[in-house]
Amino acid sequence: MTKVEAVIDELVTANRILAREGIVDSFGHPSIRHPERPDRFFISRARAPDLIEAADIMETNLDGSPADKGDNRKPYLERFIHGAIFEARPEVNAVVHNHSPSVLPFGVTKKKLKPLHHMCGCIGHELPTWDSQTKFGDTSLLVSSMDMGRDLARLLGKRPAALMRGHGCVVAAKDIREAVYIAYYLELGAKLQMQAMQIGGDDVTYLSRGEVDTIIERTGPYSFNRAWENWCRRAGRKMLERPEELVELKG
Amino acid sequence: MTKVEAVIDELVTANRILAREGIVDSFGHPSIRHPERPDRFFISRARAPDLIEAADIMETNLDGSPADKGDNRKPYLERFIHGAIFEARPEVNAVVHNHSPSVLPFGVTKKKLKPLHHMCGCIGHELPTWDSQTKFGDTSLLVSSMDMGRDLARLLGKRPAALMRGHGCVVAAKDIREAVYIAYYLELGAKLQMQAMQIGGDDVTYLSRGEVDTIIERTGPYSFNRAWENWCRRAGRKMLERPEELVELKG
Amino acid sequence: MTKVEAVIDELVTANRILAREGIVDSFGHPSIRHPERPDRFFISRARAPDLIEAADIMETNLDGSPADKGDNRKPYLERFIHGAIFEARPEVNAVVHNHSPSVLPFGVTKKKLKPLHHMCGCIGHELPTWDSQTKFGDTSLLVSSMDMGRDLARLLGKRPAALMRGHGCVVAAKDIREAVYIAYYLELGAKLQMQAMQIGGDDVTYLSRGEVDTIIERTGPYSFNRAWENWCRRAGRKMLERPEELVELKG
Amino acid sequence: MTKVEAVIDELVTANRILAREGIVDSFGHPSIRHPERPDRFFISRARAPDLIEAADIMETNLDGSPADKGDNRKPYLERFIHGAIFEARPEVNAVVHNHSPSVLPFGVTKKKLKPLHHMCGCIGHELPTWDSQTKFGDTSLLVSSMDMGRDLARLLGKRPAALMRGHGCVVAAKDIREAVYIAYYLELGAKLQMQAMQIGGDDVTYLSRGEVDTIIERTGPYSFNRAWENWCRRAGRKMLERPEELVELKG
Repeated sequence: MTKVEAVIDELVTANRILAREGIVDSFGHPSIRHPERPDRFFISRARAPDLIEAADIMETNLDGSPADKGDNRKPYLERFIHGAIFEARPEVNAVVHNHSPSVLPFGVTKKKLKPLHHMCGCIGHELPTWDSQTKFGDTSLLVSSMDMGRDLARLLGKRPAALMRGHGCVVAAKDIREAVYIAYYLELGAKLQMQAMQIGGDDVTYLSRGEVDTIIERTGPYSFNRAWENWCRRAGRKMLERPEELVELKG
Repeated sequence: MTKVEAVIDELVTANRILAREGIVDSFGHPSIRHPERPDRFFISRARAPDLIEAADIMETNLDGSPADKGDNRKPYLERFIHGAIFEARPEVNAVVHNHSPSVLPFGVTKKKLKPLHHMCGCIGHELPTWDSQTKFGDTSLLVSSMDMGRDLARLLGKRPAALMRGHGCVVAAKDIREAVYIAYYLELGAKLQMQAMQIGGDDVTYLSRGEVDTIIERTGPYSFNRAWENWCRRAGRKMLERPEELVELKG
Repeated sequence: MTKVEAVIDELVTANRILAREGIVDSFGHPSIRHPERPDRFFISRARAPDLIEAADIMETNLDGSPADKGDNRKPYLERFIHGAIFEARPEVNAVVHNHSPSVLPFGVTKKKLKPLHHMCGCIGHELPTWDSQTKFGDTSLLVSSMDMGRDLARLLGKRPAALMRGHGCVVAAKDIREAVYIAYYLELGAKLQMQAMQIGGDDVTYLSRGEVDTIIERTGPYSFNRAWENWCRRAGRKMLERPEELVELKG
Repeated sequence: MTKVEAVIDELVTANRILAREGIVDSFGHPSIRHPERPDRFFISRARAPDLIEAADIMETNLDGSPADKGDNRKPYLERFIHGAIFEARPEVNAVVHNHSPSVLPFGVTKKKLKPLHHMCGCIGHELPTWDSQTKFGDTSLLVSSMDMGRDLARLLGKRPAALMRGHGCVVAAKDIREAVYIAYYLELGAKLQMQAMQIGGDDVTYLSRGEVDTIIERTGPYSFNRAWENWCRRAGRKMLERPEELVELKG
């Protein structure tokens, strides 16, 4: 298995896991940067995540055009989310965009999504919200150009995740396993926060800044791989033993 | 496969999808207008949606009587919902009636169901609520006559969807795939709105009028078919490649 | 198949359906009155509902003692719930006792459980709450004697269902299919009411008295059997064609 | 099957049940004290609970070091939770540590988790909350030393369960079946309490002290085994007939 084949296999697995765990339904998409050509990334053609096979994966330039000009399969309209983040952040090798249900409410209210559970420290201190309305006015809310993608990437900054008003969220990480892990615990964290606010109102104890920093510092392959192994089984996917040269994980 | 056979196959699939995705339980029903006889529609005999086979589908006149007078299978009592909407709206080719759980609360409170998520823009700007009590007094709430059906159709007007107080909702669309899509995202949108109101009270940002208009304008087979392919697999149904003459989709 | 064999088969099916639909977990139990000996009823030995086979069913006197004195299988401690209701209400042929999760909150708050959805009209106008503490003081809350069972039966009166504080609920009906149907829509109705109160506070429109009366009047085998057929398939049980002499359904 | 083999088999089953019932996801872990060497306990190597096989179980000293010094499999970082509780409480033979979702909100608000449902009396009168911040400051919240484990064990005292702020909970019992039972009904009880508070605010009737005492007194193998048999089937595990010498259950 070549490095590129391994990346494509991981990307198929990521799609199936995100579907199986309820992070995506028929919409939403993960991507992985090309391991040898940092100006390209892999992402599926426009298709529901749980149906994706290796043959659906497209090699794409950062500007969203197909790497192979003859490739006329229908891409995701929102591939610009991925391209713009890969362009802005060289250390990022995987992106997930999704609309998981507990995350949405935090993008349309003034309540800030913050981690209160140690498993969710990976989402960062507090999620900012990108609103397409601010610069682009009345749209379908879809990130349909590099211009919009870059605006979103600027708001995201160096953070692991950001909300998108009336739309969902985006996660950026060094590795696809970490990105899926963050997307999963972002959904759980949002659900827990809604429950905590329901019984505690504004009197909820969130993780301290120092706790979040410590958690991010210490969370690495030990955690990502334990979850990945579990999710692979649930999604009916073989877990790939990762060749060292492919891995770019902390810890 | 004839055009009518294709329509019946789509209708069976719609029933199974609605059941699999939790939009209907043992009750609720989709219908499709006859592709060659606009004064008729197809709908199952009275049976739970997840059990329906092609042999259960009945051809029905708009007034709710069976097209074949000798057909004495037991029809749904509420077939008048479908007939009255097909009668009032020539551009509508598919109707779904259901009681999905998140939708119910909006029919019995003063809170208006409005889209806050771009996937739910398809439900329209705001759903009106039909109350059988207003004109018909104390009933079982079932739409058991053309008189009741027409009253509901008037309230629905040109909209894609309306609520029914203490009962559920109705969706009307140009195509069964669109109708199922709207019914699915209506349930999701209601759930998201309840969650957003729980943490934000009345301070929730809904989609703007212009955003809803743009979303409705731009949502077409690209989206409906992506979801349909996913739902077919989940429901264990083969997705029908749609002959052009059958399709009546926007975009 | 004899009448008794048919009743036992129905009771096994009821157990499996209640488990599959989340109305019971490892605890809770349905029963059916003996079709030929109204002073006896059938109920499983103490076992989780989803595991029950015909061989687990015990024939029991109304006072909770085994009909066969040599039958020393372990019965449910709470069989007195069933015996006392069958004793008090000759028209009742089936009882369900369960702790489904949405029902519990209404037994421990001052909020009254009332139907707001037409499918839930079958639960009656408003559920009373039996509190074991009132007469029996600090107990394990289990109905462990005929004395407790009769006290509960008195509170239930002629109603289809009652809540039990800190414990669950009880449903009584003419027929097991109706009893399971009421237990299912009682759970759904409680969930819907919690959701409606969450967004509407006390400003929720419930069904009117006349609507509830009409719904109860008109709900019969047409509805019970449609749901039963669906639930049988989901629970992996063959639906029994019901010999007329066995049926005691309205409508 | 030796006593030790039986214990290991029970521990594998406990892991699978906790995963199947949603009490753990990829993280969380049960343990059982060694039946012949009270200074040791069994716990899996670091792996997601639903994947665990007998070969994954490690024999561990109370201080968290492997009983076999040559055993260099990766243990759970938080094995100190188990060791410290076994050290402090000779009557405890099983511990469960988990982060089930309804439990979390009670650890980060001032609302006290208390039983309102008779099935949940087993969790005790009221759960105290351990906060790692108090003594250990900004950490990853993980119990990563005997020092932290002992601090948690002190807070737990003689109780069956305690919350951990921003982290989850811990359960201690005489037997693994009882520990799993408590962990399951702790999650359910927390969910029910959130629902009850949603509709009733602070006006919720909890079980009285006498009721909780009676329930704990009377809950024994009759209940634990009924649930265990059900959960074994759901998790695809064979239920072990328990040799008398292995059992240490009340009642």
